[in-house]
Amino acid sequence: MSILILFGINYNSFNENNEKRRDKMDEVRIGIIGIGGMGSGHAKNIADGMVPKLRLTAVADINNDRLIWAKENLPAGVKRFSDGRKLIDSKECDAVLIATPHYFHPEFVIYALQNGLHAISEKPAGVYSKQVREMNDIAAKSNKVFAIMFNQRTNCVYRKLHEMIESGELGALKRVNWIITDWYRTQSYYDAAGWKATWDGEGGGVLLNQCPHQLDLLQWLCGMPVRVRAFCHEAKWHDIEVEDDVTAYMEFANGATGVFVTTTGDAPGTNRLELTFEMGKIVCEHNKLIFDKLAVNEREFCRTAENGFAQPEREQIEVETDGQNEQHIGVLKAFVDRILYGGKLTAEGSEGINGLILSNAMFLSSWLDKTIEIPFDEDLFLEELNKRRKTSKKKVGSGKVFNTEGTY
Amino acid sequence: MSILILFGINYNSFNENNEKRRDKMDEVRIGIIGIGGMGSGHAKNIADGMVPKLRLTAVADINNDRLIWAKENLPAGVKRFSDGRKLIDSKECDAVLIATPHYFHPEFVIYALQNGLHAISEKPAGVYSKQVREMNDIAAKSNKVFAIMFNQRTNCVYRKLHEMIESGELGALKRVNWIITDWYRTQSYYDAAGWKATWDGEGGGVLLNQCPHQLDLLQWLCGMPVRVRAFCHEAKWHDIEVEDDVTAYMEFANGATGVFVTTTGDAPGTNRLELTFEMGKIVCEHNKLIFDKLAVNEREFCRTAENGFAQPEREQIEVETDGQNEQHIGVLKAFVDRILYGGKLTAEGSEGINGLILSNAMFLSSWLDKTIEIPFDEDLFLEELNKRRKTSKKKVGSGKVFNTEGTY
Repeated sequence: MSILILFGINYNSFNENNEKRRDKMDEVRIGIIGIGGMGSGHAKNIADGMVPKLRLTAVADINNDRLIWAKENLPAGVKRFSDGRKLIDSKECDAVLIATPHYFHPEFVIYALQNGLHAISEKPAGVYSKQVREMNDIAAKSNKVFAIMFNQRTNCVYRKLHEMIESGELGALKRVNWIITDWYRTQSYYDAAGWKATWDGEGGGVLLNQCPHQLDLLQWLCGMPVRVRAFCHEAKWHDIEVEDDVTAYMEFANGATGVFVTTTGDAPGTNRLELTFEMGKIVCEHNKLIFDKLAVNEREFCRTAENGFAQPEREQIEVETDGQNEQHIGVLKAFVDRILYGGKLTAEGSEGINGLILSNAMFLSSWLDKTIEIPFDEDLFLEELNKRRKTSKKKVGSGKVFNTEGTY
Repeated sequence: MSILILFGINYNSFNENNEKRRDKMDEVRIGIIGIGGMGSGHAKNIADGMVPKLRLTAVADINNDRLIWAKENLPAGVKRFSDGRKLIDSKECDAVLIATPHYFHPEFVIYALQNGLHAISEKPAGVYSKQVREMNDIAAKSNKVFAIMFNQRTNCVYRKLHEMIESGELGALKRVNWIITDWYRTQSYYDAAGWKATWDGEGGGVLLNQCPHQLDLLQWLCGMPVRVRAFCHEAKWHDIEVEDDVTAYMEFANGATGVFVTTTGDAPGTNRLELTFEMGKIVCEHNKLIFDKLAVNEREFCRTAENGFAQPEREQIEVETDGQNEQHIGVLKAFVDRILYGGKLTAEGSEGINGLILSNAMFLSSWLDKTIEIPFDEDLFLEELNKRRKTSKKKVGSGKVFNTEGTY
C-alpha cells in the first residue's frame, strides 16, 4: 500500500478516515463566518446554487447590520449567528468558509477543524506566519479538509504557466518582474470598514489585502526566494496607517532575481508579469501569455557564439490555454469535490503560509531597513508587528459595502 | 543686454568669443581619438559625408592594428596618430571626438579644451564622478564647445516624452519602472578587447558600457533621485570581473519611486519604460508611447470619489511624435551647428555627470550593501573603485571588432 504525502496532507489516512462519512454525504452544508464584502459575495453565489452539492445553511457576523442584510437577502432556511464559534458548534454545517478580517482566519480554521468541520479560509492565511504555522500544524494532524481561497490559481494563464515551468521545457528561471499596481482604491474604500488598513484590525495594507494572490502565485510559479529587500511606504497615497506602496527585490536559491511592485495608488495600474528563463521569456499581461521561445539554451549559446552581438534564434508564440477561469466558484467546487470524493484542491490550506512569509519578510525588511533572509525570525516579526498594533488608532467605518464583483 | 546661463555655459560670452572664428569657419575639421568599435563607426560616417560641414582630418589610436585599418579604410588625407595628444597638438583639427576607453574621456576632453579645440565625448563622461566634475569645471571656464554623445536623446519618443513632462500636463511623477535588459552580449563580446569589463580597463560593466544612455534619459525625464539601493551582480552570466546584472531601487525628492533593471544576459531582453504621473500612465516600448490619460488628477479623485473601487475616467492614446531619430549623426550635426552658428546641442557635455552619478551610486550601494544618499562621498567611491582596480586582472583581447551598426 503506497502512502502519498503531499503538502503535509496524508491522502491515504485522509481517504480512510473519510470513507464512511463520504458514503453517507451527497452534499456539503456550508456556513460562512464573516459576511462583509467578500463573505456576502460568497453567500449569494452559494445560495444561488452556483456550486453544485454545496448548500448554504448558516452565516455568522459580529455586526448586526450584516445579519439584517442576511435575513433580507439570503434564503429563509439559512441560520444566523452573531458568533462564528456558535455557528461551528451548531451542527448546521459540515464545513465553514472563513471570511472575517485576516487576524481571525487561523483561530476560526483551528476551531472548525478541531470540532470536526472542514474549513476553507479566505486569503491571506493570517497576518503573521507564526500564527499560520500553528494552524498548519493542527491541520496536518486533522482528518478534515483544509483549503484556502487562492482563486487566481484557477486562471488559465497562471495554470498554463505553472504547467510549462513544471514540465522543465523553460529551463532554469533567471529573472522575474511583476508590476501589479492595478489595485486602485480611493480613500472611501479605506474609510468604509473600521478594521481596514489599520495595524491592529488588518495587520497591513496592499500586501495583506490585495496581493496575497500574486504573492502566492509568485511562489507557486518561481518557488520561494531566499532573501528579500523591500521598501514599504505607509500612508503614501491614502489617509491610512499601513503601507499602500511597495517595491521589493528578491533573490532565489539558484541566483535568479526578482522585483515585485504594488500599490493601491496608481490609476490606471498595471498587471504585467515577466519571467525570463534559460529557454526564453514569457510575458503575462492582459490575460495573454506571450512566449519568446529560444531555439537553444541561452547559457550554452553565450559560451559558444562567435559573434559578440549575436542572439539565439527565437520565435514569438501566444501560448494557448484552455480559456477556463472559474475563480471563487472553481475553488469551492474543488473544495466540495475533495470533501465528497477525495479530489484535488485548487490550493491546500497549508500552502497559504508561503505568500504570507513573503509579505512578512517584505514588512520586516522595510521596518528594519535591511535585507531579510528567509526563513526569518518569526518571533521578531510578531514583536515588530505588535509594536505597531499598540499605537494603532481605532477608526469608525462608514459602513459602506461596495460591490466586490470582479475584485479578488 | 541679457545673459542666459544654461547648464553652466554662458551663451553670451561664448557667442562673443567665437564671433571672429565663426566668421572665418565654414566647416569643422574633426579628429577622432580611439577608433575601435564606436570610433571607427563615427569615422566612416563622417568620412562618408553624413554630417554636413564636418570633415574628418585625423584619427588616433594606441593600437597599431587600428591605424592600419584607418589607412586602408579612410580617405587618404586623414592623418594618423599613435597618441591622442599629438592629434590635438597637430593643428589638423578644430574639434575632437573622444571614443577611447571610458577612463580616458575626461583627460582627452580637458587636454583638447585647454588647447583650444572643441570636444565631444562618447558616453559615459568618465568612470567616476570626481574625475568628471573636474572636467566640467574646466569646460565651464573654457570658451570651447563641450558636448557628449547622448544619441538616444535624438529619439523622437524620448524627445516627445521629455516635452510632455516639461509642459506640466502630466502632473507630478509617482513611479518609474525601466526594464532595460535588451543588451544581450555573448562571452566573445567580452573576450574581444583587453580593457573591456575589467575594473582597471573599463571601470564597470553593463552600467558603464551599455546603460549610460538610459541613465541619462532617466535623469533627463525624471530628475535625479535622492537615494538609491542597488544590487549589482558581478560575473553572473559571463566570465568577466564586473557587473552584468543590476536591479536598482530609487527614491526621488517628491517621494516618487523607481526601479531600474538591466543585464547583458537576457535573451531576448526587454526595453520597457513605464512612467506613472498624477494625470495618467505612459508606457514607452517598441518605439511607441502609449498614454493612459486621466480626465482628472488622480490625487484629487482619490480624496473625493464616493465609491471605493471607482477609477478616474481615462482614454488611451498612442502619442504622435515627429518620427525623427537621427542618433549619432544628429548629435554630430548639432555639435557642428553649435560650433559654427551657436545652435543648441543635443546634450551639453556637462550633463554627462548626472547619469554617471547614478551608476556610481548604484555601485556604491551594492559594494557597501546599503542605501546611498545622493550626493554621496565621491572620495569614498574612488577609494572603493581603486580597491577593485588593484586586484583587476589583465586580459588579452582577441582583437575582434564587431560591427556596431544598430548598437548605441
